[in-house]
Amino acid sequence: MAVARVALVAGATGLVGREVIAALLAAENAPGTASLDGAPIHILHAAGRRAPAALARNVVVHAVDFSALPSLPPVDDVYIALGTTMAEAGGQNAFRAIDYSAVLATAQAARRAGATRCGVVSAMGADPQSRIFYSRIKGEMERDLQALGFSTLVIARPSVLAGNRQPLHQTPRRGESLSLALLQWLRPLIPANYRAVAARDVAHALVHAVRHGTSGVQVLSGRALQSG
Amino acid sequence: MAVARVALVAGATGLVGREVIAALLAAENAPGTASLDGAPIHILHAAGRRAPAALARNVVVHAVDFSALPSLPPVDDVYIALGTTMAEAGGQNAFRAIDYSAVLATAQAARRAGATRCGVVSAMGADPQSRIFYSRIKGEMERDLQALGFSTLVIARPSVLAGNRQPLHQTPRRGESLSLALLQWLRPLIPANYRAVAARDVAHALVHAVRHGTSGVQVLSGRALQSG
Repeated sequence: MAVARVALVAGATGLVGREVIAALLAAENAPGTASLDGAPIHILHAAGRRAPAALARNVVVHAVDFSALPSLPPVDDVYIALGTTMAEAGGQNAFRAIDYSAVLATAQAARRAGATRCGVVSAMGADPQSRIFYSRIKGEMERDLQALGFSTLVIARPSVLAGNRQPLHQTPRRGESLSLALLQWLRPLIPANYRAVAARDVAHALVHAVRHGTSGVQVLSGRALQSG
Repeated sequence: MAVARVALVAGATGLVGREVIAALLAAENAPGTASLDGAPIHILHAAGRRAPAALARNVVVHAVDFSALPSLPPVDDVYIALGTTMAEAGGQNAFRAIDYSAVLATAQAARRAGATRCGVVSAMGADPQSRIFYSRIKGEMERDLQALGFSTLVIARPSVLAGNRQPLHQTPRRGESLSLALLQWLRPLIPANYRAVAARDVAHALVHAVRHGTSGVQVLSGRALQSG
């Protein structure tokens, strides 16, 4: 029998985050799950921003300031699908405040609330040594998440195609990440439906891996993020 | 110094409910309030229905089935501004499920979560002996709320003008509640802005009375629901 697990999700209105919620609802309401009504799904939502339109039963939305998170109810697993674009953020500092600081703050708040497993959406090419700002921030985020003591940490590194809305907004240096730049350039040609399917695959792989609970750090990329 | 109080609100998307939230946010963020960040405001929201658009910081939205409420976090005060219309509900049983059953279920769940004070939006003419279905349901609701053991129970009975959206959908019997029928008939002539101001006055009076915490049952109507 599957065990009910209380989840915390940040970034639930994004392309991947929405699919994480759907996957969690499906998992918690699957036949044979321990809890009759499914465990609650807690969502951290930036105060003042438009909330998810329709909320499924057992969903609890906490309107928060990510730079001053409140204490949270007990949770088992945290899923972080936070991310902005340089254009939306308006600069590197503001971008870092979301893609690094808010991610880390969420993970820390979840640890304090008892979470032992974490699933995070990063990006292909994440590397703390990268000369590309975007990839470096993602890499630093991954590195510092690993210091928080989760027993299970699953890092999804989807390609730009896979529901990742962040444009790079910075010319990749020669020979570095050409494929990323190419994918970004081709992106408008990719049907929206394909991106939605890709986002769903990423979310399902992430939720499946976290609920499976293999100890240690696990990086999912490429085929591991595609279904079938 | 004002003491921070954790509130639970049901019916937060309605005309009066929205103003209850605004009044609570103002009270919790007033200078001199004990908690630096304000106490959380918990909202019970019918699962699947459109959520409040923008959520202020410290607001926590619980998507629930009112006929099977989950256990709730600790709360001090509960505000109930639930109500539907006969047209929306589609019949007397469905109407009663909201205006009586959901109200009582919310109050009971709040009591279990530690609430000792309750503020409820009823309606002018509420009377468990009334031959008017609408007034009778409101009267039964008021009567049964009083049996739940709140130390403070504040019942607001606004007129139909005061932000109350429920049409009667039933011809009042001769000599009974003629003024109610008249108000209902005149209602389309009343400017929407007046109704919004009236809803705000009702909400402020309710929140003020609950936070003041006079022991026993207090009924607010007429002038007590108007500011200035």
